Order: sequence, then structure tokens, then C-alpha cells
Amino acid sequence: MSSRLPHRPSTPAPPVPNVRAVPAVTPVGQPSRPVTGALVLDLIRTAGTISRVELASRSGFTAATITNVVRDLIAEGLVHEVGRARSRGGTPRRLLELDRTALYAVGVQLDRCTSAIVVTDFAGRRVAATSLRGVGRGAPGETLRTLADHVEDLLASAAVPRARVLGVGLVTHGPQDRERGVILTPQPTPAWQDFPLTATLADLLGMPVLLENDATAAAVGEQWVGSLDVDTFGVLYMASGIGGGVVVGSEVYRGRTANPVEIGHVPLDPRGPACSCGNAGCTESLAGPSAVVARAGADPGLRDRLRMSGDADDVLADFERVARAAARGDQDARHLLEDSARHLGTAAVTLMNLFDLDTVVLAGPAFATAGPLYVDLAQRAVERGALARLLRPVRVRLSTDVGAAAAVGGALVVLRSPLGRPAARESAGEVLPALV
Amino acid sequence: MSSRLPHRPSTPAPPVPNVRAVPAVTPVGQPSRPVTGALVLDLIRTAGTISRVELASRSGFTAATITNVVRDLIAEGLVHEVGRARSRGGTPRRLLELDRTALYAVGVQLDRCTSAIVVTDFAGRRVAATSLRGVGRGAPGETLRTLADHVEDLLASAAVPRARVLGVGLVTHGPQDRERGVILTPQPTPAWQDFPLTATLADLLGMPVLLENDATAAAVGEQWVGSLDVDTFGVLYMASGIGGGVVVGSEVYRGRTANPVEIGHVPLDPRGPACSCGNAGCTESLAGPSAVVARAGADPGLRDRLRMSGDADDVLADFERVARAAARGDQDARHLLEDSARHLGTAAVTLMNLFDLDTVVLAGPAFATAGPLYVDLAQRAVERGALARLLRPVRVRLSTDVGAAAAVGGALVVLRSPLGRPAARESAGEVLPALV
Repeated sequence: MSSRLPHRPSTPAPPVPNVRAVPAVTPVGQPSRPVTGALVLDLIRTAGTISRVELASRSGFTAATITNVVRDLIAEGLVHEVGRARSRGGTPRRLLELDRTALYAVGVQLDRCTSAIVVTDFAGRRVAATSLRGVGRGAPGETLRTLADHVEDLLASAAVPRARVLGVGLVTHGPQDRERGVILTPQPTPAWQDFPLTATLADLLGMPVLLENDATAAAVGEQWVGSLDVDTFGVLYMASGIGGGVVVGSEVYRGRTANPVEIGHVPLDPRGPACSCGNAGCTESLAGPSAVVARAGADPGLRDRLRMSGDADDVLADFERVARAAARGDQDARHLLEDSARHLGTAAVTLMNLFDLDTVVLAGPAFATAGPLYVDLAQRAVERGALARLLRPVRVRLSTDVGAAAAVGGALVVLRSPLGRPAARESAGEVLPALV
Repeated sequence: MSSRLPHRPSTPAPPVPNVRAVPAVTPVGQPSRPVTGALVLDLIRTAGTISRVELASRSGFTAATITNVVRDLIAEGLVHEVGRARSRGGTPRRLLELDRTALYAVGVQLDRCTSAIVVTDFAGRRVAATSLRGVGRGAPGETLRTLADHVEDLLASAAVPRARVLGVGLVTHGPQDRERGVILTPQPTPAWQDFPLTATLADLLGMPVLLENDATAAAVGEQWVGSLDVDTFGVLYMASGIGGGVVVGSEVYRGRTANPVEIGHVPLDPRGPACSCGNAGCTESLAGPSAVVARAGADPGLRDRLRMSGDADDVLADFERVARAAARGDQDARHLLEDSARHLGTAAVTLMNLFDLDTVVLAGPAFATAGPLYVDLAQRAVERGALARLLRPVRVRLSTDVGAAAAVGGALVVLRSPLGRPAARESAGEVLPALV
């Protein structure tokens, strides 16, 4: 799910302690009250309103457990009753919903070229959002300080009490060590490799920070805000690089070390350009914004006509110039994008045939303008080469929010983590936000 | 996980009723005694010998539940006590093990060119095995009759009482509808598409038959009989075609319709030969035995030197001729295999980068002689292009039993299914085998 190229590190950096540890998830088989509560909260969040009986049915917990957990959640001000369900003969059931303003979460999507910040309420609804230039040439500490300032500004402008913010989901490229909160490759610069991202941002903001892959977060966000009618699908994420994510039965596919679906670095053409990932002709080297922009820059007519900046740290802005020119009818620009889209279509076929999918969503800021063209050509590719077409319709869709789905996913990762159940934080020694 | 090419069916065949329905698995959240029993049986099978305390710890069930379930299993003659664990201060714990001869299972691996049959005891140990020519040009009914005869012969020669055979795991290429027990593509001939495979074989043998993908079964079999030290790995399966399987945390990756990891049909080279899967240059069309044999046949010197049969229904025999010639030092034959192995190495990189794996196993009858050459070149490919190499060693291994791992997996699928717990069959209306 990387969006940038990995290098073999010359000397491994020492492990960086995470100064603000996230409470551990209780192991399976030893369910505790906080974990049960987190699951119940998420069932209510997903349903909007729901009865206790339905909660018991969907969670598999007994009615007695649900009664006790819900009583605690109401006492903590996280859940309240909102009326009764229409009667079907018996006594109408009282409905529960989350107190939306009880708590909040922040999602920060970080890329070399562009970043997005989203604040959601406890129900997962967006209450504020902003976007800004990416990390570019910035040193990690400096970039995180800028991001922290933007988070503070956004919370203030939305009048969200800081004490009610559960934490931040920081989403960026992989491979990552999510436990340590670090990126494992020297992208965009060597200073970023093994830099304590979550620990630093947590210190700056005074709140817990979780790390997540951007493509995975986009999948989570798309499932939340999008109009998907399936619970199994793939995501092709294109920012300054290309990553992927897969959700199966509403669960994120995690693999062995939680760094799966590196669709940007699967080899599609043995005669393609060498990539620092070690492969020739991988998806990113053939279809990524850098490849499109490099080809546009090599065409003097196109370069001058589109006023390309040629700045590698601003490749998405140049890519957007190509996309807008293609949308205006510039045939040279269109051919470049079509070539990229055909390769991305091949990647979509690979994703479908390996993960047994019939739906792939295109997400990420690179699709802001070029999305429809990519969807069109990738759809043709999967109709030609995805095996699932033999059994049922196959579909490539554009994300309902190409720019912010990943940031929304980052906030949801926080809401669904043990952080989303304050009692769990209390037991882990965290300060419980003052609840009404 | 197909090993053959799919076609779009011109007219969909009508659904075929499965005359011998497999008992349904009890849905999650409503555990019943038989399902609990099946899990406990598999924990004992995996451990060899184990105490009740350890069973409770590994299963998550309470000590009381384990006591009750084990009492039932002992009364049914499936489990017995075999002594006591060495004391660590307290009372030595009594150890349990399966009664190996209580029940048996059969695995049948079916391919166009070669088939293998394995009988295992209740503990999953191989008690008899045979191999035979594959389906070739045979009609499905005729082929299944031949296979049924071989199964009967094998059971008789091993003195396995038929009444103690739980059932047959039939493993072959995909895509499949495992519930209906049919193959969804017209391979090897149109007569096979939608033919009631499991229903017919069940009628012939008078025992339940389950359908499973060959590559998936090879993964299950390899994990059982092999020396893998990881619970997350991929399998590249090569018989007359190429398929794949992935196991994550000891669980088979199933995808949306249980037809995942079609690694034979991911596009690796846009200039490669067209495949009926719809893609150009897919793994199977570049690296599969048919491709190797076709290139050998197009070289008159090699064709005559190797006495190639040129029979498409016997492509694995011709492939084996090329492999043996390469092993004897024939450079032309070696170059053909090396070219195939390099493409398979690219497929291994794709598998690792998408499923986040560090281990890929090569299994299937095509590796009987050529295995070491393929392992060598695929290992080089993953060391160059698999992202996991940046974090830990990446390995390509040869299956410990390239010819029979899939058949062993087929038998294990039966043992681990609800069929493996006779009480579950009883409740589904099946005749319970007479147990001592």
C-alpha cells in the first residue's frame, strides 16, 4: 500500500520509543468490558439508531451483557436513547444512538505533494476539513509542526473542545511499522525513515496518534462515506505514488506485517523502466503521476503549453496541469493519461484476480480531475481481463471523495480503535476527557 | 487459483442439484456442541497429544465446556487418554490423543494430466496413496468412475473399513462453485463446466464429497506435512496449468467467492501471448507447462531429441521430458525452463507484494524434476523485487511433496469440515458410521 518507492536502508536506524503509547487491544479470547464497549459503540455508529435487541443479535453478546454495557455507555454520556422503534405487535423497542458531540477524532493524510485534515464527530460525521500542500522538501519535524498547527486551527474554527478529541489517525505511505509509528523507507527523504512520526505529533498536539497506510485508510473511508453496496472491494490509491488496499467482508486485509497490497510495485512490463523497488515496469513507474509528468516534460511543446513547473516535490500540481489540459481537449495530454490509465487498468485486473474482487475504487488526490478518464479505461480493462466477469459484473468506481477519503478513514481508525472507548484509555493510564 | 483458462460461457448451464448435501456449518455466534467438538478434535489433531487444560487455553472455551466435549468424544471412540504430562509441581495432567483408526478421509487431486489419491487416518497421517494419469480427453462421468474405482481399490488394499471413511475431498482447478460442487469453466472440455462433480462421485462411492481448489488444498497440505515455520505464506501450484493459494495466520484467504489467487492469470507482459482468460502475457501463458512444451515442440532438434509426444492432453509428460533433459545438461531445454522460471519468479514477487508474504512454496506435479531450478530462479527474483526483503528474509521453497500435497490437503479439508465430527452428520440426517 506504499505510495512511494522503498530503498534498502544502508544502516538500519535504531528503534524509536513511542513516548505516547496506544493502549493495547485486549487479546481475543479474553474479552473485557472496554473492548465489548468499543464493539457496541461501533455497531451503534454504523447503524445510526439501533435497539438493544438488535445490538445483541448483531454483536453475538447476550442480552444481559448488552444491557450492562449500554448502561455504562449512557452513564458516560456516549450513548443516549432517542425514542422507540415502530411497534410490530409487541412493546416498541427503545432506540439508541451515539452522542455525536461527546467525542471527536482527527484524520491527517500526509503526502509529498498534498495533505488533507478532517475532523469527525463521535458518529463519524465530518465536522471540519482542510487541505494543504504536502511535505515537499520539508524535514519531518518541521512538517509535523505545520500539520499540528493546522489541526489546532481546524479544531478551534470548528469549536471542537480539545479535551474531547480522542486522537489523530495519521495516514501516509508504507511500508510502515504501525506499532512504532514509523515509515520504513527513506521517502520522501532519508530523514523520514524511522522518524518517530506518531510520537512527535502526539507530543506536539498532546493527544494520541495512530499510524495507518493511506490506501488502507482510503478503503476504510470509502466504505464509510461512499455508496458501496459490497463489503468486499479493492482500492487503487494514487497520490504522488500508487498504493492499494483490500477490504474483505468489511475487514481490512492485513497480511503478515500489515504492509500488503503494494500494487504500485508489482511488475507489469519486463521492458518497463527500472524502479528503485527492484522491479522493472512496476505499476508506479509506468502509471504514476511522476511517470506521466516526466513524459509531459520531455515533450517541449506540451511542457511549454502546460507551463509545467518541473518541480519533483510538486509533481501532483504538474499532473493536475496535464489532467486539466486533457479535459480541455489537448490530445497530447490525453494520450499520456490514457497510457497511464491502461496500466492502472492492468493493475486493477491483477488486484481482482488475486484477491477475488468484483469492485475496485479509485481514490486519492491524483484523480481530482482525471478520475473519469481513469475509471473509463480501467473499467474496459477489467471487463476484458478480470476473471470475476465470468461470474458477475465487474466494476471500477471513482471514490465519492478522492481528496479526503483517506483522511476520513484515518479519523475512523481512531474511533474504532481502543481509543474510541474512553474507559479503555482510563485503564491504560490515559487522562479521561471530561465528559458531560 | 485456477489451473486452466476460463471462457465466457455462451449459455449458462442450469444449476445442478447436489444429491448428497454436506451438512451446513453452524453460523458464527451460535456455537453448537458438534462445532465445538470439531474444533477440539482439530486442536488435538494438530497437537498430537494435549491436556484438557491446554485445550481450554488454546480454544478459548471454558474448562467445563472442554470437560463435557471431551467426555462425549471419548464415549464416541474418537479420543482416548494416553498417559500423563510430566509434572511441573502439581498433579500431572492426563493427555488426550485422537484414535487414529476411528475414522479416515480421502483426498483426490484431479488434473488434465495427472491425478493423485491419498487416504489419511483420523489423525491426518497418510495410510495409502497412489497416482494415475489425469482426465485427458475423458468425459467427466467416465473419469469420475475411474477415480471411484481407484479410491475403492486403495481403501481395500489399505484395509480401511469403508464405513469409517468420512468422505472425499476432491481438489481440482477453478473457478469453482464449491457449494454446488461444480467447475465454472469449460476446462479441460466444455462437458466439465457445471458437471455435478461432487454429486456424481458421492453417488459412485456412497460417501460425502467436498470440492476444493487444488492450489488451496496444496497450501493446506503443505502446512500439514511440510516443515514451514510460518503460518502466513503463499503457494504457486503448477500442474497442467498454474494456480495459487494464500494462507494468512493459518487461515486460507477466500476472497469474495472463494476463487482467489488466480496467479496464473495476472498479466506480466503486455507483449506476451494472448490467453483465453482475456489478458496478454499472463503467468500461465508465459510460464506454464503448455508454453514450455510448445516452445520445445517448435524447435525441431529439441523435439526429436526429447521424443516429445505433442499430445496436448499429456502436456505434463512432455514437460517432464524437457525437465529431465535440462537436468541431464541439455542447454536448450534448460534455457526454456529458465525462461519459464523467471516469469514464475515475477509471479512470486507479485504474490509477495500484494499479500504481504515472505514465504512462497512451489507445489504441484510439474515441479517433480524441475523444482530445484524453479526454486533457484524464483528465489533470485524475490530477493531482487519483493518488498518484504527490506524488512526480513524472503524465501521460495519447494513443497515437501510436490505430487501429493494437494491430495493430502483434500483429505484434511474433509477432516476439518463438519464431516469430521460425526455427531454433526447425525444431526444433519447422515448415517453415522458404526464406531467401536
